[in-house]
Amino acid sequence: MTQPLRLLVAYDGTKFSGYQVQPGPRTVQGVLEGALEKLMDRPVRVKAAGRTDAGVHALGQVVSIDDAGDLHPDVVMRAMPSLLPSDVAVVDAQLGPKDFDARFSALWRSYVYLLWCADAPNPLYSRYAPWVRERVDTPLLAEALRAIVGTHDFSSFGRVRSDQTPERRIIEATAVGDGPFVRIRITGESFLHQMVRSLVGSALEVATGRRPLSFMRDALAARDRSAAGPVAVPHGLTLVDVGYKDASWPRRPSLQWPWSDRIVSHAERRYA
Amino acid sequence: MTQPLRLLVAYDGTKFSGYQVQPGPRTVQGVLEGALEKLMDRPVRVKAAGRTDAGVHALGQVVSIDDAGDLHPDVVMRAMPSLLPSDVAVVDAQLGPKDFDARFSALWRSYVYLLWCADAPNPLYSRYAPWVRERVDTPLLAEALRAIVGTHDFSSFGRVRSDQTPERRIIEATAVGDGPFVRIRITGESFLHQMVRSLVGSALEVATGRRPLSFMRDALAARDRSAAGPVAVPHGLTLVDVGYKDASWPRRPSLQWPWSDRIVSHAERRYA
Repeated sequence: MTQPLRLLVAYDGTKFSGYQVQPGPRTVQGVLEGALEKLMDRPVRVKAAGRTDAGVHALGQVVSIDDAGDLHPDVVMRAMPSLLPSDVAVVDAQLGPKDFDARFSALWRSYVYLLWCADAPNPLYSRYAPWVRERVDTPLLAEALRAIVGTHDFSSFGRVRSDQTPERRIIEATAVGDGPFVRIRITGESFLHQMVRSLVGSALEVATGRRPLSFMRDALAARDRSAAGPVAVPHGLTLVDVGYKDASWPRRPSLQWPWSDRIVSHAERRYA
Repeated sequence: MTQPLRLLVAYDGTKFSGYQVQPGPRTVQGVLEGALEKLMDRPVRVKAAGRTDAGVHALGQVVSIDDAGDLHPDVVMRAMPSLLPSDVAVVDAQLGPKDFDARFSALWRSYVYLLWCADAPNPLYSRYAPWVRERVDTPLLAEALRAIVGTHDFSSFGRVRSDQTPERRIIEATAVGDGPFVRIRITGESFLHQMVRSLVGSALEVATGRRPLSFMRDALAARDRSAAGPVAVPHGLTLVDVGYKDASWPRRPSLQWPWSDRIVSHAERRYA
């Protein structure tokens, strides 16, 4: 009987051409598969909960392989730090339940978009929190985001592939200020391509006063990409959490402010 | 009458060959002087509170120029984001009191050394907090650091130039755990070259069980560099604060966890 191996993975997306493997460019999937292939001495294909774009980070990405063979998760934890480059890490490893598939078993994905809202940029956070020079009205940002919660046709906010429907269910969409940071959190069952960044970019149009509060609702109703605001830059976005039926995993160690445990365990409790 | 200009500066030290200008390599001083020269249209020489080594970061570096001329601090704040690269920022600018000199007017400098102590590395903090795989006993680390508080001959812990005495006064040296982080803070009137990293490296020898608690005191007494432990890697170190007689400046906006306001205002209150 084969048993899947599942991994909780963190990465700094700055130097990756996105998650998904492609011939040539450096991808997270390519790096992970290369490391696992060295360890298992056979070709490996990993599946992932979220295929993040180029520049997008992860603290709670989940990947799986269908058959762990005789590989023990403790061996993975011990070996990975020397097999992986410094911008990717396996945070936890476990044998999964039968038929576990990081992508198709996932019930929801949760993203945080960080903004740095201060008079001057901060070079120590600039890789993870783009600087917004204009004044951001955080309560107004939160109110703009409330319009997207629920099941809607999100054609205006993402690319719909021919094999997809444009309907998606958003479970939560919030914005809170935390010192000079503004932290946007969007949790949904699944997302269209570029949808989170498109939602953030549009909500920021409202929060900086360039568009009225009705903008989000109007853009949703239009079902036309030209009705939405600009797509926010990728490096503010971090995949922080993925939910599965078995709510005891992933465990979430080692995640810290501004991506704190506090925040990251939140969606799990409410929506698992 | 000339009036000095003083700047609060933050930088990510990863891609700098240290603070101090040298012909060829990229330095923080070189980048700052280049930006100010564009703004003032004349040669500029800046002085700094701390000449940080290659790879060391800053959130609270203070630099000054002797004569602001007719340059208004608000103009500096507005112009700097487009004149500086993304790894350096001017966080605050002000005209200083007569004879203000960022280096010689400084009463104390405060550094934070961050460690990431968890089962797996964290790629999103690895530039600022080196991963320590061994167990770190934080109370023992704090106890080891207590031995260096006060005025001592620090010959064992740093390079003494021919124009220097080896005595230095350490005002505080603490270690606290904060989730998976361990945060070491060392505040002193001034430091020998590589002294903070040498103190951290030696205290870690104690905290990981490789040396007895008496190691710090014995190393101090030896007055010989070979008596100290290894010098800790530079990228864990951040210059967080500098104190001046005029305790109202620098203001400390936009500094955040793990370099939080809470921490950064601490030394000021106690030792200003």
